[in-house]
Amino acid sequence: MDAEGFRKYGRQMVDYIADYLENIRERDVVHRVSPGYMRPLLPDEAPEKAESFDEVMKDIEKIIMPGTTHWHSPHFHGYFAAGNSFPSILGDMLSDAIGCIGFSWATSPACTELEVITTDWLGKMMNLPEEFLHSSEGKGGGVIQSTASETVLLCLLAARTRTVAKYKEADPSTDEMQIISKLVGYCSDQANSSVERSGLLGAVRMVKLLSDENFSLRGETLRKAVEADKAKGLIPFFLCASLGTTGSCAFDNLEELGPICAAEDMWLHIDAAYAGSAFVCPEFRHYMKGIQYAETFSFNPHKWMLINFDCSVMWIKNSSYLVDAFNVDPIYLRHSCEGKLPDYRHWQIPLGRRFRSLKLWFMLRSYGISGVQEYIRRHCRLAKEFEKMILDDGRFEVVTQVVMGLVCFRLKCSNKVTERLLGEILADGRIYLIPAFVRNIYFLRFAICAERTTSDDVKFSFQVIKSCTDRLLQKVSLKNGYKHVPVINIDAPQHLETEESKYSSDSSTPDVDQ
Amino acid sequence: MDAEGFRKYGRQMVDYIADYLENIRERDVVHRVSPGYMRPLLPDEAPEKAESFDEVMKDIEKIIMPGTTHWHSPHFHGYFAAGNSFPSILGDMLSDAIGCIGFSWATSPACTELEVITTDWLGKMMNLPEEFLHSSEGKGGGVIQSTASETVLLCLLAARTRTVAKYKEADPSTDEMQIISKLVGYCSDQANSSVERSGLLGAVRMVKLLSDENFSLRGETLRKAVEADKAKGLIPFFLCASLGTTGSCAFDNLEELGPICAAEDMWLHIDAAYAGSAFVCPEFRHYMKGIQYAETFSFNPHKWMLINFDCSVMWIKNSSYLVDAFNVDPIYLRHSCEGKLPDYRHWQIPLGRRFRSLKLWFMLRSYGISGVQEYIRRHCRLAKEFEKMILDDGRFEVVTQVVMGLVCFRLKCSNKVTERLLGEILADGRIYLIPAFVRNIYFLRFAICAERTTSDDVKFSFQVIKSCTDRLLQKVSLKNGYKHVPVINIDAPQHLETEESKYSSDSSTPDVDQ
Repeated sequence: MDAEGFRKYGRQMVDYIADYLENIRERDVVHRVSPGYMRPLLPDEAPEKAESFDEVMKDIEKIIMPGTTHWHSPHFHGYFAAGNSFPSILGDMLSDAIGCIGFSWATSPACTELEVITTDWLGKMMNLPEEFLHSSEGKGGGVIQSTASETVLLCLLAARTRTVAKYKEADPSTDEMQIISKLVGYCSDQANSSVERSGLLGAVRMVKLLSDENFSLRGETLRKAVEADKAKGLIPFFLCASLGTTGSCAFDNLEELGPICAAEDMWLHIDAAYAGSAFVCPEFRHYMKGIQYAETFSFNPHKWMLINFDCSVMWIKNSSYLVDAFNVDPIYLRHSCEGKLPDYRHWQIPLGRRFRSLKLWFMLRSYGISGVQEYIRRHCRLAKEFEKMILDDGRFEVVTQVVMGLVCFRLKCSNKVTERLLGEILADGRIYLIPAFVRNIYFLRFAICAERTTSDDVKFSFQVIKSCTDRLLQKVSLKNGYKHVPVINIDAPQHLETEESKYSSDSSTPDVDQ
Repeated sequence: MDAEGFRKYGRQMVDYIADYLENIRERDVVHRVSPGYMRPLLPDEAPEKAESFDEVMKDIEKIIMPGTTHWHSPHFHGYFAAGNSFPSILGDMLSDAIGCIGFSWATSPACTELEVITTDWLGKMMNLPEEFLHSSEGKGGGVIQSTASETVLLCLLAARTRTVAKYKEADPSTDEMQIISKLVGYCSDQANSSVERSGLLGAVRMVKLLSDENFSLRGETLRKAVEADKAKGLIPFFLCASLGTTGSCAFDNLEELGPICAAEDMWLHIDAAYAGSAFVCPEFRHYMKGIQYAETFSFNPHKWMLINFDCSVMWIKNSSYLVDAFNVDPIYLRHSCEGKLPDYRHWQIPLGRRFRSLKLWFMLRSYGISGVQEYIRRHCRLAKEFEKMILDDGRFEVVTQVVMGLVCFRLKCSNKVTERLLGEILADGRIYLIPAFVRNIYFLRFAICAERTTSDDVKFSFQVIKSCTDRLLQKVSLKNGYKHVPVINIDAPQHLETEESKYSSDSSTPDVDQ
């Protein structure tokens, strides 16, 4: 394909995308295919000779779309919002065309410098402590990673290295592996599964601590665990606190946890993958109280800030913990770039990197801070509208406080009945949502996801839920009765494990990072 | 921006991209900015109010392009090719628009299924052993990762887990960390720095072994190292062999290394990041001999196969080593999808994933196997043309055999003179290349990078080098004389370290993964 061909098919693709997103409501939100549907539709081998791109364009509708779940449909309420916007797509187009591999400043300075500037912009929009900004005096700054899970692993490895170095300094004869074998990290039982996985990958213990009745990890719980582990001869070194958990958008209590981390010299990482976007609005910033104790903080603009995947932003106060730990370059290269600009290849796990700040820049300029705030607030307002409909109906209860764009609700019945309601809704197929199962309570998660979701869309979704409920409760009341198991003020739970997946099909595990 | 706005600016962006790539020769290949150039051009904070996208479009030329190195210019000969093509860009546009987060089959089946099919297509194009394909009987298959460095880390961690499990099974009382502390992995002294870094991240020893006079790691060297380490009580568990090293496109000897890995039960990972693309041409496949011993194999279509970054494909024979090692899902979820389709979230470090197979599919159909072969062969032919010009000149020597799209050459002088030649070339600014420093020999790397590089482009680049050499040697012959230090048949080197960076500015470290 030459440049003329690209002009032709590029225009077709732009129109296809515009049509797709403009009319996305008209499509079935969830695919209806069975595993393996695509194999018979495609040849076993790549074509020997070039095909016309007209054929390729035709196959999008024929082969790809039937197996696509439309994450940007206003009828999609699963997981959390997956960010997207037209300016973000345009930014990625330019990034693809430039196609530089910006692993260091010199390989394409604009790639590093725009990332420095836009992560500072973002940090200021959220009122992050000065130390997290490139423009500060110290070694702090932001960087774009692929996902929150990659960030958690990176922070855990940096914390591991920092702690090992400290113990080695105190006693140079100590064996490094001896120290690692004593390390223990912590997270809430509500944390994303990637935190536990990062412990496996990093070869350190990761303990899930019991959150309180609001699914919030509290200081006292951490303090007791740290005391007990120290008594066993272990070395507490890392805490991953969550702001806006995947299951129910719960918030760990940073003001209580932070001082313990400081006293114990533990690395505090804050994972605000979803909720972080809301901190552009001052009214949500009280959830960040205590952030000054953190070494690292991250959130995903690709979740709830209009940026397409991948774009997870991490801020660190002292980047030398990363650079020194994993830099295998000769020492005389370390500070080769003037002007305090980072060599981002040392700030991440892969070495190569895309020009992802372009989409951030395009979006921020096209929406402005006020536009982003308006988008966040609209989603929160819509969640409140949905909550009211659910409560007014009388047959439902809301499981956790609705503070952002997520409503967790269930029928005032046994878990089994709510589970069957989900089955009805998915069989109906007009909307999509997923369940969670926490502390023996099975509930449905209704997330406001799409950029252009309206009040009418939420009413539509509620009507679908209502009609499915009508249908279900007719059957249930006949067969099994209608028994209410209350969930408010849950007793101290026995389950430490989040078991969302126990009830869920593969399609409905919420504990997965986007 | 609404759909109409996207139609308008999408067309503008398509035209901008077509113009940019069509006329890329006219731009200075390397930026001329100083660190920090962008800060004064942009405000300190994101705009409060939305700006017109016309302003954004204008700023591409004003703010981004001056700080951009044009990796797709035919005058760019640094590192290795960074893949790109118009169909690949179109595939990414569609991926961005669909914006699904395909971490499991059900979240958007097309995303998983197309990746299964296209990685099988690729594997068959290269004649990979059947066990690496999804269509085989076993648990093998391909997956798209972000980079070769991420793949190396993942394979090392899987190998670590496999070995620990084996020793734990033999003696359940053994402490896991005790085992890890004895593990030792190997790579050639020519391996990419990411291999050494993966050892740091994975908390295991990584030993760099001396390659032979062709920079190839040989069986005897590995055998001796393994023997010596076992005698010290260590546990050899992993070898990363390279096909097409970054420094000089050297090839480790798989036929010798493979049987040793098999005998010692060591995980053999083959990193063919650059050279792998050439294996679509049968005439290059002799370098793969011994691949049957590998557990994992990877190469980067985003390097030399017309795909824009990121797209690094990894194949594994037995995916359960990954899935079982790092799967924190409950066990009853593990095989929830029929039809032997993978849950790719367990095959990688991040959990979320983009629909990257679209660009692979678009490219393969638009070029066909024959088109990809023609592209590879053209690059190899151009490298040979350049080699001939260099040798015919009489003042240069070629350091390593030219087998693919890379020519390593130097002046028949001291290292210092070739280093000064690079200085002349970079100051001239019409072309871009980078140096390497291996075994005390400083040389320049001339890589054929851009898709549409022609014979005329190579002649142009040679003329630039020639005129810079003329200029330099006039100065040198007057001042320092012209002393030839021969490099052919280098004596057994004392340096185990590759020290490319000793002579290089930050811009010219070749040992970086794209």
